[in-house]
Amino acid sequence: MRIFVNERGAERLLSRHLWVFARDVVSGPEAPGLYPVYWGKRFLALALYNPQSDLRVRAYRFRPAEDPEKALLENLERAIARRLRALEAEPEGGFRLAHAEGDFLPGLVVDYYAGHAVVQATAYAWEALLPQVAEVLRPLVKSALAKNNARARELEGLPLYVRPLLGQVPERVVVKEGRVRYLVDLVAGQKTGAFLDQRENRTLMEGFRGERALDVFSYAGGFALHLALGFKEVVAVDSSKEALARAEENARLNGLALKTVEANAFDYLRALERAGERFDLIVLDPPAFAKGKKDLERAYRAYKEVNLRAIKLLKEGGILATASCSHHLTEPLFYQMLTEAAQDAHRVLKVVEKRGQPFDHPVLLNHPETHYLKFALLEVL
Amino acid sequence: MRIFVNERGAERLLSRHLWVFARDVVSGPEAPGLYPVYWGKRFLALALYNPQSDLRVRAYRFRPAEDPEKALLENLERAIARRLRALEAEPEGGFRLAHAEGDFLPGLVVDYYAGHAVVQATAYAWEALLPQVAEVLRPLVKSALAKNNARARELEGLPLYVRPLLGQVPERVVVKEGRVRYLVDLVAGQKTGAFLDQRENRTLMEGFRGERALDVFSYAGGFALHLALGFKEVVAVDSSKEALARAEENARLNGLALKTVEANAFDYLRALERAGERFDLIVLDPPAFAKGKKDLERAYRAYKEVNLRAIKLLKEGGILATASCSHHLTEPLFYQMLTEAAQDAHRVLKVVEKRGQPFDHPVLLNHPETHYLKFALLEVL
Repeated sequence: MRIFVNERGAERLLSRHLWVFARDVVSGPEAPGLYPVYWGKRFLALALYNPQSDLRVRAYRFRPAEDPEKALLENLERAIARRLRALEAEPEGGFRLAHAEGDFLPGLVVDYYAGHAVVQATAYAWEALLPQVAEVLRPLVKSALAKNNARARELEGLPLYVRPLLGQVPERVVVKEGRVRYLVDLVAGQKTGAFLDQRENRTLMEGFRGERALDVFSYAGGFALHLALGFKEVVAVDSSKEALARAEENARLNGLALKTVEANAFDYLRALERAGERFDLIVLDPPAFAKGKKDLERAYRAYKEVNLRAIKLLKEGGILATASCSHHLTEPLFYQMLTEAAQDAHRVLKVVEKRGQPFDHPVLLNHPETHYLKFALLEVL
Repeated sequence: MRIFVNERGAERLLSRHLWVFARDVVSGPEAPGLYPVYWGKRFLALALYNPQSDLRVRAYRFRPAEDPEKALLENLERAIARRLRALEAEPEGGFRLAHAEGDFLPGLVVDYYAGHAVVQATAYAWEALLPQVAEVLRPLVKSALAKNNARARELEGLPLYVRPLLGQVPERVVVKEGRVRYLVDLVAGQKTGAFLDQRENRTLMEGFRGERALDVFSYAGGFALHLALGFKEVVAVDSSKEALARAEENARLNGLALKTVEANAFDYLRALERAGERFDLIVLDPPAFAKGKKDLERAYRAYKEVNLRAIKLLKEGGILATASCSHHLTEPLFYQMLTEAAQDAHRVLKVVEKRGQPFDHPVLLNHPETHYLKFALLEVL
């Protein structure tokens, strides 16, 4: 059984984008699964296929293979092999073992939290392969949880559920990150439990010292904890009482002090400005303001607003650590937004470092959807 | 004496761009020098001024100062202070002490080579201040050379010359960089003698091991030397016989082996492809193909061509280390070019690291002209 695509679909796969949408698929099998993709007689790729999904073809290999299932699981093994050194260096840490398309594992995310795995599958063909995925993970982890409650599964016609795949899944684990530890709710937390993509950007905060630091959109205090090692006062701001309670719990776990503020970030930054407050370092790690392309203009204004206010609150020589995880706010737009915020604030921003996703969240130039995290470290002059 | 600018000039300075061109200057003193800039009664900046230059006003400070000259030299002292730790850690190394606009020192570049300074001034007002610049450098260096032979000086109405400012200037020095040493011709070399902006990108090459590496546009072997520590064979390609002779001299100095090839890079890459040669790592560090905006289209094609060929020459899992120092090929265009090259080569490029200028070549978001160097480390899958 084969999938046949039209010329446009073939061009996408030849240019090594991994996706072909329904409109460019000529014909294919009736059941979801793993199949070879052809353009006429020309083999193009092996792909995960779902006839019920508009995102119909997700390629995972551009050479034929005797056993498509084995070839896909080999991609998982290869992805894990690339993380092994980091895992062995910090077995109590948190790492992404499988980063979906970025690892040629379309629709599969596997996160590792101190010896426990959380699996998220959002492409249909993975559903039947979860036992095999668990087998690949078995030598590495004490437990594995299928956290298959993401809304994206509905688009694939998949049910939403959370259930153990392997071993005894604890409700929460303690994860080590640089010089701090934090709690992860495996079962009840957002996404797979934490946001590992900012791991190295968070630990980077341990290099800074000063009087006052501010962590805006602090969630469970990821950045604030590291800052509390080097700053006399650290204020963590979030609109969620639950997130702040978790931040305080994390602070106690580390014997560190945080001042938590439950507030709307925009209002709070304005209030700080009116009160003439000043900080040595400000972290901005907002949620994705741009969920889709159509939100982009409004999102751009929101990012600019929050960055502009932070710039104004920084002392001369202060550090702005600012992120965006919206794929639609591209890297060029992110830096344009920051430049405009600096211009409007009449302050010079010097680039200390432009950063993005860590090695375990790989970006493929040919598949731009793999790139979403931007992180700038800037000095306000 | 004051400089008066129009509203557009004021907007530029308020947005913290450092330059105002002749068309936006209403009036100013007759002689070049350091003056305050006003928009009506509003003070905007202190600036280097040259009534003979189209680039008339170059701001260096956005607050008033009693003594404009002292304030400018304080910027130099501050720039040097930011490099002191690196300098003390590697006194035999090479560092940029003053990066012109990036350090609020418009038109002044000072490079440090193992205890010797090379000064380049391309704004008129610096000419009278060179003795003071030498005094600031005196505690740090054994000698200082004014290498004032850049063509850009003619646009300012300045003479071209090379003369010592301080101490006994040696013809050449040996500079340490990571685990290698290289020769710098202070008097006769290109620019200030070497290209310090790639220092950290070059030492990064020491982290790689393999069979065969290729350094295209190798100049004096900057990248090739570091590669020779970890690769069995390193081929350095350049069109200049003199540059290759220097590369060989540098190789001997380090007891390392390089294979040098005098050739046009485009022709040579094509020949390698025809011969079916393959490499584990390829460095592309071309000269600025786009000197001006009008060359951009042609330059874009040249960059893409050379990257496309290199991608095809890399083994699966091989590393492409590719740079552009053209300001006009912006960072977004650089990555667009790489993406298109990957698409055309039908190979997936995974981002290992996106890099740029090191800390001693600072980039100011408000003054985009400070950003020119892009450097991508990519894995070819």
